[in-house]
Amino acid sequence: MGLMRFNYRSEIIGMTTDVTICYPTGMLTVLDRPPARPVEKGGVQLPAPPEKFKYVPGMKFQTVWFLHGGGDDDTTAYRFTSLERYAEENQVLLVTPSVRDSMYVNTEYGIRYMDYITDELPKVIRALFPASEKREDNFIMGFAMGGNGALAIGMIHPELYSGIVDLSGGIGLTLDREVYREQMTRNSMGRNRLVGCLKGADDFENTDHDLRYIAEKDLAEGKDVPPIFIGVGERDFVQPRVKKDYEHLKDLGFNVYYEEGKDLGHEWDFWDLYFKKSLSQWLPLKKKPIYPGEE
Amino acid sequence: MGLMRFNYRSEIIGMTTDVTICYPTGMLTVLDRPPARPVEKGGVQLPAPPEKFKYVPGMKFQTVWFLHGGGDDDTTAYRFTSLERYAEENQVLLVTPSVRDSMYVNTEYGIRYMDYITDELPKVIRALFPASEKREDNFIMGFAMGGNGALAIGMIHPELYSGIVDLSGGIGLTLDREVYREQMTRNSMGRNRLVGCLKGADDFENTDHDLRYIAEKDLAEGKDVPPIFIGVGERDFVQPRVKKDYEHLKDLGFNVYYEEGKDLGHEWDFWDLYFKKSLSQWLPLKKKPIYPGEE
Amino acid sequence: MGLMRFNYRSEIIGMTTDVTICYPTGMLTVLDRPPARPVEKGGVQLPAPPEKFKYVPGMKFQTVWFLHGGGDDDTTAYRFTSLERYAEENQVLLVTPSVRDSMYVNTEYGIRYMDYITDELPKVIRALFPASEKREDNFIMGFAMGGNGALAIGMIHPELYSGIVDLSGGIGLTLDREVYREQMTRNSMGRNRLVGCLKGADDFENTDHDLRYIAEKDLAEGKDVPPIFIGVGERDFVQPRVKKDYEHLKDLGFNVYYEEGKDLGHEWDFWDLYFKKSLSQWLPLKKKPIYPGEE
Amino acid sequence: MGLMRFNYRSEIIGMTTDVTICYPTGMLTVLDRPPARPVEKGGVQLPAPPEKFKYVPGMKFQTVWFLHGGGDDDTTAYRFTSLERYAEENQVLLVTPSVRDSMYVNTEYGIRYMDYITDELPKVIRALFPASEKREDNFIMGFAMGGNGALAIGMIHPELYSGIVDLSGGIGLTLDREVYREQMTRNSMGRNRLVGCLKGADDFENTDHDLRYIAEKDLAEGKDVPPIFIGVGERDFVQPRVKKDYEHLKDLGFNVYYEEGKDLGHEWDFWDLYFKKSLSQWLPLKKKPIYPGEE
Repeated sequence: MGLMRFNYRSEIIGMTTDVTICYPTGMLTVLDRPPARPVEKGGVQLPAPPEKFKYVPGMKFQTVWFLHGGGDDDTTAYRFTSLERYAEENQVLLVTPSVRDSMYVNTEYGIRYMDYITDELPKVIRALFPASEKREDNFIMGFAMGGNGALAIGMIHPELYSGIVDLSGGIGLTLDREVYREQMTRNSMGRNRLVGCLKGADDFENTDHDLRYIAEKDLAEGKDVPPIFIGVGERDFVQPRVKKDYEHLKDLGFNVYYEEGKDLGHEWDFWDLYFKKSLSQWLPLKKKPIYPGEE
Repeated sequence: MGLMRFNYRSEIIGMTTDVTICYPTGMLTVLDRPPARPVEKGGVQLPAPPEKFKYVPGMKFQTVWFLHGGGDDDTTAYRFTSLERYAEENQVLLVTPSVRDSMYVNTEYGIRYMDYITDELPKVIRALFPASEKREDNFIMGFAMGGNGALAIGMIHPELYSGIVDLSGGIGLTLDREVYREQMTRNSMGRNRLVGCLKGADDFENTDHDLRYIAEKDLAEGKDVPPIFIGVGERDFVQPRVKKDYEHLKDLGFNVYYEEGKDLGHEWDFWDLYFKKSLSQWLPLKKKPIYPGEE
Repeated sequence: MGLMRFNYRSEIIGMTTDVTICYPTGMLTVLDRPPARPVEKGGVQLPAPPEKFKYVPGMKFQTVWFLHGGGDDDTTAYRFTSLERYAEENQVLLVTPSVRDSMYVNTEYGIRYMDYITDELPKVIRALFPASEKREDNFIMGFAMGGNGALAIGMIHPELYSGIVDLSGGIGLTLDREVYREQMTRNSMGRNRLVGCLKGADDFENTDHDLRYIAEKDLAEGKDVPPIFIGVGERDFVQPRVKKDYEHLKDLGFNVYYEEGKDLGHEWDFWDLYFKKSLSQWLPLKKKPIYPGEE
Repeated sequence: MGLMRFNYRSEIIGMTTDVTICYPTGMLTVLDRPPARPVEKGGVQLPAPPEKFKYVPGMKFQTVWFLHGGGDDDTTAYRFTSLERYAEENQVLLVTPSVRDSMYVNTEYGIRYMDYITDELPKVIRALFPASEKREDNFIMGFAMGGNGALAIGMIHPELYSGIVDLSGGIGLTLDREVYREQMTRNSMGRNRLVGCLKGADDFENTDHDLRYIAEKDLAEGKDVPPIFIGVGERDFVQPRVKKDYEHLKDLGFNVYYEEGKDLGHEWDFWDLYFKKSLSQWLPLKKKPIYPGEE
């Protein structure tokens, strides 16, 4: 219940940019004891108020780096779903950068969005906001273009996160090289954008735009890739692609969970439902702030 | 899908104030013909895109004056529910003022919030934004404190609106004089606020803080009060009060509809569901813009 | 004194984008007669209040399309100067899009920012906000990267504007082909960005990235290019470039005015001063709203 | 150059409220070494870039609690002056609450705005943002109604701040009891607001609405009241009142500085100039962040 749009000049992007930051302040209190609340009102028994946590200097929050979809920006998901409410219920800080249609990679046209998210933004956020620096307190999650983004960032930087959520990811980096090639060559809606961002169909193999290569490297190097949660609407047009990513991951032996949203497509009703499920059930959140000395 | 927070100095309030304004831009287009969309993507049949409406100077939108609850401000409902999405689906402009905990009345401490909403704000909004001036295109709706607000404003100014939605209204103006007296005298949570805003238990009868008096006056004067839609959660602690308002209205012969949300209380899950229902089903919305010449 | 950040999905950009819109509401009134103000206060004679204009449906405002600089976005100038105040004093609506570091052109990487500003944005703004459609009521103005942007847009689309202000423009489109070539080839700060946006040193001549070509075409076709106002800080490192553009324009016979800010550089103090000068003195603004029937 | 509007539910106010927070991020860096900048550009010698400070978890900023004027809110001063720029130049965090027209007191109508600012807000801000908790790093400053607010809060809670700035304060709490009585009894513009907030002309003496009483109590108790800086426009209609406050303070022996702005009135041009002067010259700011271990 504390929402801000932080606007600052990013050094890696080289431009002023917006970051939406969502604090779970609705369950925090400055009071030593909450005020006595009436147990009934209008003759009706009231529910017990939720437990409150204290505001304390040096307190930290678990952080979900929440990635927006293609065509969207840092504000959209907060407006079109009840995301802020789910964050509050789970006492987690959400941070959503705005990456334009960059597929969350270090783009071919020169702007290094992946470095922005994994290097600059954590430094800025952890200096200016009470975001825990520990891997166990950090998670990456996204939907649509941000689903692929979360999967790719989480597998390229598994040392930074202890959970990955990919919802409806179907465009951008993938473990399926045929799908990658197809999206770079077919005359489809997003092709022009992809071409500017990603390495071409003939050049991407065994680079950091090739998630198959990344996955095998993670295994070869014994990297500790965190649990991966994948969700997609049963009727989503990207469902076949999302399922392929899941199958590749399972075949390679990663800790991966897959679920389809019954009767749902590539739509906000699916995302609203699965934003809640991801934060409330999938990710192993502490559901409380981290106080000094507890770390 | 166009959201703004308009900040200006109100003459009636006498202070700078915020108004959240929500445009249904996601279904508007500047294109003569939408771009040819692929009928399939990734081998999957795509749904037909929704019909788009043209941006035209002089176009107008139907307007829902959407009133926030106690303790909230103009931003809260947009953040904690999918309200913006429902507005877009129904091609309606939403306008939410910020009235502090004023019960939407001309307060005893001197700030005339009801006049602000029924006099100043329509003038400002209709001069600066494409909001239709016709009664048939204007509706008033609110939840919690804003539910009573919508009911009171709609009955005091029935000439301005062609539909009223009161969701979970249970605090503030009411047709039940016993309930009014009770809230002004019992030692309950909100009492101090109410006392500053509203006329006292001994003084309110037959004033504009007495909805029973207003209702009877509307009848006596043959005023055309628009249809009233009332909703409340079955388990909401204010359910008895809301139902009483409904029963008074029905007994007096008003056109009133009442519905309870099964298993739901005084909570965002109820409001999210009934914001959608109110805009999609209850209010007789045109679900399209109004173009010059059509008026 | 009415400020908003309008966030919507642009069709030409293909993404959600922000537009800062600034209304001169501080001089508008809903009152038939302003309240009697004390002529003195605390024993001191008060200045007469400024004249107020009425809020009227159908009223329009003159519009300055105000373009931000490189590395900046739609918010920066409003925060780092008193721009909003100067707009209010001159009763003009300001519209500032956010174009990233695109040089305000239809970029080589595919996003058509110039078309966005000259085609889509006027349609959207004039349908949703009371911006006059007449050429005589529209002006284009910018600083730094936005200075070149204003000059280029104004010369490519002289039919849209009746005044152009270029403050400290020194990067992007220019009438000096040597400067253009130099910025595309020298190893300078902004080169990588420019290379992605603009046509190369060998390809730009006689294209719409070549302002010399545009200027000569305007003359050959007898286009009515509006007055051009150019300002730059005496100590600005781009001063030589800005002056060259001025000299080319003068030599070609355009109606162009040039002024240097004494002792000032490429800095906010210069811009604050010249934003005020541009709106108060240079542009031929009506300094009042346009009412229905007056058009 | 980092600006946010933080919106959360205050416990003391009992409502959702906005707080504008301004970070000096423009002088911070995530880079170990700044990128080599060209020493010249376009043949012109460039100024050396300003020194940058590192983003470090646990870093803190000196904080100026910046109070808005009557009729204004938390956003106004940032929009109508270059305040954000001056904050950045002086590496200070600004925090501006929104207190409506409350005179910054614990109001007679029940909302305890002074407690909000001196008790709740520091707890919330210091838990959620890197604001130093030390008295030596905290300052209170305001203009117009906020000038009196800063003076009153600083004198009632001298243990919290190491500097007070009162610009153009002329309404609300004052050391001059005649002025207080006059503003509570004369039929002047703001009287109705004052009457609701403040104790009456017959009741205020020797209460916390009586700054004369507070001042004498501070002296009697040997409180360490920090330096007080007072500024007012020479032609401001409140100049006589402001000067009286200065004279009372000087006569009582407080450390107080007074300055008049030549030819300036109760206007933004005065405030813009004196916001800069207050932050750059008057307040003893460190002009750099505070790093862990330096405290």
